[in-house]
Amino acid sequence: MGKIRTNLVYGNPRYEICAVCDVDFDAAKQMAELYSTIAFQDFKNVIQYFELETNLANKDSDTATSSKLDAVIISVPTRFHCDYIRQAAKYKLAVFVEKPVADSPQEIEELYTMCESQGVPLCCGFQRRFDKSYVAAAEAVQQGEIGQAISAHIFFGDSPGPPLEFLITGGNIFFDLSVHDVDFIRWALNDNIASVYAKGTSSSDELRQHNVQDNATMMMTTTKGSIVTLTMSRRAAYGYDQRCEIFGDQGKVVVGNEFDTTTITSNRTGDHRSRLKNSYDSRFREAFVNELNAFVDTVLEQKPWPVAKEDVIIVQQVASAAKESLETDRVVQL
Amino acid sequence: MGKIRTNLVYGNPRYEICAVCDVDFDAAKQMAELYSTIAFQDFKNVIQYFELETNLANKDSDTATSSKLDAVIISVPTRFHCDYIRQAAKYKLAVFVEKPVADSPQEIEELYTMCESQGVPLCCGFQRRFDKSYVAAAEAVQQGEIGQAISAHIFFGDSPGPPLEFLITGGNIFFDLSVHDVDFIRWALNDNIASVYAKGTSSSDELRQHNVQDNATMMMTTTKGSIVTLTMSRRAAYGYDQRCEIFGDQGKVVVGNEFDTTTITSNRTGDHRSRLKNSYDSRFREAFVNELNAFVDTVLEQKPWPVAKEDVIIVQQVASAAKESLETDRVVQL
Amino acid sequence: MGKIRTNLVYGNPRYEICAVCDVDFDAAKQMAELYSTIAFQDFKNVIQYFELETNLANKDSDTATSSKLDAVIISVPTRFHCDYIRQAAKYKLAVFVEKPVADSPQEIEELYTMCESQGVPLCCGFQRRFDKSYVAAAEAVQQGEIGQAISAHIFFGDSPGPPLEFLITGGNIFFDLSVHDVDFIRWALNDNIASVYAKGTSSSDELRQHNVQDNATMMMTTTKGSIVTLTMSRRAAYGYDQRCEIFGDQGKVVVGNEFDTTTITSNRTGDHRSRLKNSYDSRFREAFVNELNAFVDTVLEQKPWPVAKEDVIIVQQVASAAKESLETDRVVQL
Amino acid sequence: MGKIRTNLVYGNPRYEICAVCDVDFDAAKQMAELYSTIAFQDFKNVIQYFELETNLANKDSDTATSSKLDAVIISVPTRFHCDYIRQAAKYKLAVFVEKPVADSPQEIEELYTMCESQGVPLCCGFQRRFDKSYVAAAEAVQQGEIGQAISAHIFFGDSPGPPLEFLITGGNIFFDLSVHDVDFIRWALNDNIASVYAKGTSSSDELRQHNVQDNATMMMTTTKGSIVTLTMSRRAAYGYDQRCEIFGDQGKVVVGNEFDTTTITSNRTGDHRSRLKNSYDSRFREAFVNELNAFVDTVLEQKPWPVAKEDVIIVQQVASAAKESLETDRVVQL
Repeated sequence: MGKIRTNLVYGNPRYEICAVCDVDFDAAKQMAELYSTIAFQDFKNVIQYFELETNLANKDSDTATSSKLDAVIISVPTRFHCDYIRQAAKYKLAVFVEKPVADSPQEIEELYTMCESQGVPLCCGFQRRFDKSYVAAAEAVQQGEIGQAISAHIFFGDSPGPPLEFLITGGNIFFDLSVHDVDFIRWALNDNIASVYAKGTSSSDELRQHNVQDNATMMMTTTKGSIVTLTMSRRAAYGYDQRCEIFGDQGKVVVGNEFDTTTITSNRTGDHRSRLKNSYDSRFREAFVNELNAFVDTVLEQKPWPVAKEDVIIVQQVASAAKESLETDRVVQL
Repeated sequence: MGKIRTNLVYGNPRYEICAVCDVDFDAAKQMAELYSTIAFQDFKNVIQYFELETNLANKDSDTATSSKLDAVIISVPTRFHCDYIRQAAKYKLAVFVEKPVADSPQEIEELYTMCESQGVPLCCGFQRRFDKSYVAAAEAVQQGEIGQAISAHIFFGDSPGPPLEFLITGGNIFFDLSVHDVDFIRWALNDNIASVYAKGTSSSDELRQHNVQDNATMMMTTTKGSIVTLTMSRRAAYGYDQRCEIFGDQGKVVVGNEFDTTTITSNRTGDHRSRLKNSYDSRFREAFVNELNAFVDTVLEQKPWPVAKEDVIIVQQVASAAKESLETDRVVQL
Repeated sequence: MGKIRTNLVYGNPRYEICAVCDVDFDAAKQMAELYSTIAFQDFKNVIQYFELETNLANKDSDTATSSKLDAVIISVPTRFHCDYIRQAAKYKLAVFVEKPVADSPQEIEELYTMCESQGVPLCCGFQRRFDKSYVAAAEAVQQGEIGQAISAHIFFGDSPGPPLEFLITGGNIFFDLSVHDVDFIRWALNDNIASVYAKGTSSSDELRQHNVQDNATMMMTTTKGSIVTLTMSRRAAYGYDQRCEIFGDQGKVVVGNEFDTTTITSNRTGDHRSRLKNSYDSRFREAFVNELNAFVDTVLEQKPWPVAKEDVIIVQQVASAAKESLETDRVVQL
Repeated sequence: MGKIRTNLVYGNPRYEICAVCDVDFDAAKQMAELYSTIAFQDFKNVIQYFELETNLANKDSDTATSSKLDAVIISVPTRFHCDYIRQAAKYKLAVFVEKPVADSPQEIEELYTMCESQGVPLCCGFQRRFDKSYVAAAEAVQQGEIGQAISAHIFFGDSPGPPLEFLITGGNIFFDLSVHDVDFIRWALNDNIASVYAKGTSSSDELRQHNVQDNATMMMTTTKGSIVTLTMSRRAAYGYDQRCEIFGDQGKVVVGNEFDTTTITSNRTGDHRSRLKNSYDSRFREAFVNELNAFVDTVLEQKPWPVAKEDVIIVQQVASAAKESLETDRVVQL
């Protein structure tokens, strides 16, 4: 994800990459070379470097303006988020961070409070909010095109699947996969999740032995009375399958898939089309571009970021409820 | 449904309509006139009429062969099924009957036993078994095209919706709508339902006051470990929406919808296509034709009917479990 | 085609099949047995049989009403059309006849005149006029949904292809295949063909040696200034491919194909769908049903038949112009 | 187009933008500011600037290597192409140029000869060569998936349409629009155009008065005997409509359109989908990215550019033949 973000930031003339930082310093150096910038291994050093430079600059110019750095984009494993966000906030850097902001609602709460007190935005990425097709669907619902929303049906098939190693040693299907769609459906329906029932399955004996579910389904009710199903898979063999449909008493709106090509070959055995786009980087590329522009708008033009603290906290709570439901085989109320 | 069956029987040269019978005798007479046959109001009289005629014929011919009537097609409200099937079986008529054969597993059991002891087939109609698209999907699964089945997602949107009156005074969404798809998914997956969790909603205050759910979702697990969601609506504004997808570790198979026309108009606002086919009679017409031919094959050529007693009983039990789950908000094991 | 028409007539309660007639008497007998009617080999005998029967009936009833036969449906090779239509008209039978009514404009003219003088309708079948999708496209154009029509693009891929024998010994691709679409586009655009340029190709050496084109393309202009392309193939390997699009300055309307099933299987190599419907009998079944009902409306209720003499003549002239263009490699004006 | 190319060059880390040049100097300055580079009004000055800089650099380093500039991307009206390409070639800059390289075959010939003698590549852009969907279609044909190619049918609907002013004062529909598809079909079929018949129409009285065709259709034959239709429109109201289908004796391959979103809303009146992508910049974005990477491969790694001099000349000759055909209403042989 960091590579994708960096490439898109590089291609966006509203951004200037001041530095890249990666605990894998070779990776950082490679990327810095590619994008003509400087590399760091330790985030502290980035801050210090620009702080000093700024101080020197300030001394020369005899002014007391802010640092040359405006913002930081944090695309690292979740366990580093707290530390990095705290450092960034301390130096009044605006923060864009991959979901989830942190693992626990308490930490999320604390980080938002800290950023707020420092006067810097904390912007958590949920690309569906910036994807034309998802936005069109949400707007259709909000403008009454399907009447009263009755149910929603979502499929999240990841592609290409993660290595078995990753599945066994970490990650949880609800925390890793459900949050994007739970965030979207809450937004689209302008509604909240009231209860969750979840089941999961393991597609191989090895996963079963490690009690790891690589496929799962959640059935949720909302406060206003809609029913939402969300099925997730760690791996869809035919490509990145991301669909959402919302059914109402006057109609239905569906977000469909994007294909690798539009080419269809017809022969004796039927019609044959390419696979779906292979991964999130091709499927959501334009949404990622839009997201980066929205971040600039927030940093430089004080436009509000569409994902609020509550949104970030609640999707974690829903994932947590799903996990509990799977473990107890009972419906969990929120 | 009776009208549709009669029309298709009339157009099938392997059938000869001997009589139509309807408790609404005017309707029976109209249909008899349309299809050049005779009308009855009481099913007993049909039997008697053909029995006598046969007896006379037998006297003349000095033989003791079976009645001129071979079979009866029963398309009436479920509450009449038992009586009619018993009479038909008594006179050794093969029976085709709309689902469900009867309301309770006990009655279903008894009717099958009776027909069996009389040596006549009892054939319950489930049109998905005879629909090219559903059959193709089941075959794809059974031939391993999607690998190991992991989950299935079904949508049943009826069209046009029944009158409010019907919803309030009778019918239950699980019994009326779920059985077709539960039968199909059991057959396609060659698997059984192990548990059901169901929720329902009412789309209007009036329905809520009468505790009538016109929309519902079931989440089921199967014996082999698949997860199945099934969402039903009494009314899809955009037409008869009947979809099913089965997801496996090697791929996915989807049964899609049929549209009223293939015409697409493109203009400034986008692409516009016709509604879906409006109802089951247009969507499943070909399946109904196939079903009638299969019934002839069973009656005249002793080919086995694909839906067995167990299938008929189990889908009722699943509907019953769904109803119980909705009433208790608990997962029900089967 | 005769088999399809007979089956549909049999299934339509507004019709009663009085007799089937086929120069292949065994075929006639088989069909008569299937549909419980009487068989004839010679069309003259059909007429005579019913004439006599009518006369006897008339004697008894002391009335002078018309024959028991109302109409005849002629589905035979074109070379028999003239004789049969003349006989039918003589005895005041309404006539439904497959396209073309006759090979030459003169004969067509004469047959229409004769039928008119006898007061019986002569109804030539063009199923697009009765097909929901084609009708929806024509209406979209006529109601201004695409603005001013600018061009049209038509593809006619037959399936399954005829035997090589048929191609070599008879038939001409323009006369056999173009007339349906030329009739449709004239009707949809409410316009006339002004010029034709045509090219054809032979897909095998054997066809080339016999100077038989099994693929051809016509480019036409209309009186009002639209440009129409029409590509025909005797055989589309992937099924019956019948498409038409009309492009206007405000939009476009497209008639698409119908598939054998709606089932789509997705796997590592992409999305796979069934072939198109295999032939005209499945693709246009509903249109044929509608056509037969329209014929009853014309015969019994004097509703006008939508295809006029001029339509029938002009499409033959256009086919003839295409043939001439192919032979001379020049644009032919009409 | 220049804006799109510059943006993509900026975002590609294999490129460094040395300067932008535009006869509209304000535009040049704006773009230079956006992409942090320097602006020029006159292409001569760009060359001189970098030549001098290089010379100075060379003096310092006491070497005689090539200029700091490697290549130039020329996105300007065709009438400037010759001058710019000559200057670039003189200073041994690799050239990427929009189609057509020049208006006349003679000039094209001369420019290629000059570049060749200077040892620099002259790379003319045809984005279909770099578009996944078009490439997949060409490969399907070349790998025999549709058997022997029989015909091809292409639609080019531009969007948004150019201003009336542009249409009246310059441009020709064949030269402006046909070349992309003629190049593609020659490549995909590995075949040459043998004859052209073309008709054009004007969609308004004003265009007619100026003898300007904003819609046109070409019907071509190829050397190997295929028939190709190509219909062009200056404006498709529903978006950028770019389709191509190739029909063979074993199947068909189709390049379809891309939509603005994948969102479909269904309601009482049917299914509604977004417009097509609005323009070439969104439809062919990825192809343009691929094209730029291919240009780097050609400049830095000496990989061959897929479009040869002959390709560039022949598509102009075909456009010229189409224009002649339209003016004479005769088939033109090539």
